[in-house]
Amino acid sequence: MRPLPEPARESLTLAPVLHALGDPVRLELVRRAWGEPESTCSALADGLKVPMSTLTNHWRILREAGLISMSVDGRHRRVRPRADDLDDRFPGLLDPILRLGAAEAPDSGLL
Amino acid sequence: MRPLPEPARESLTLAPVLHALGDPVRLELVRRAWGEPESTCSALADGLKVPMSTLTNHWRILREAGLISMSVDGRHRRVRPRADDLDDRFPGLLDPILRLGAAEAPDSGLL
Repeated sequence: MRPLPEPARESLTLAPVLHALGDPVRLELVRRAWGEPESTCSALADGLKVPMSTLTNHWRILREAGLISMSVDGRHRRVRPRADDLDDRFPGLLDPILRLGAAEAPDSGLL
Repeated sequence: MRPLPEPARESLTLAPVLHALGDPVRLELVRRAWGEPESTCSALADGLKVPMSTLTNHWRILREAGLISMSVDGRHRRVRPRADDLDDRFPGLLDPILRLGAAEAPDSGLL
């Protein structure tokens, strides 16, 4: 597995994390990644009505903001939530966002 | 005072709110507005090294996402945080964001 570049824990800042979460598709991808901590890009995006190129961009934004780790595994891209790094840098941030995102998900029209 | 248009409480959704907060300048403006619930655009932006046109755009994004109310009062634009609306729609969301934003503010380089 070849890990893709990502920011170090100590360089994570709040605004890029909120920006990364500030899109309905990315918010849904993060919710799914947190629910399935060992998965792949394609499995997590299953059923979303979004072009592949847009999804690739979304995953990059999430990785560069520090929300997820990604690694290339043959033909798959594996996704791992950076839950520990985020809890360390931004304690108490993600739980309400994931909870509120879950409450909205049925009405989001993403599927 | 002439109020500027804003989304109704019941139409507020999470992603635009996070997007609005996902910029260091807007995050700082929101922090200041919450600290001074009756203020003006110019007073809240005091000292920020940002062009006026950029600030105008930031205030619009914050208003359209539902974070603030704005009204025209002669030559001033008055700003009021929509704290009750946000607490109603997104309970538990804003407190950690404002707290974490405050912790980062001294290093933000905005001033």
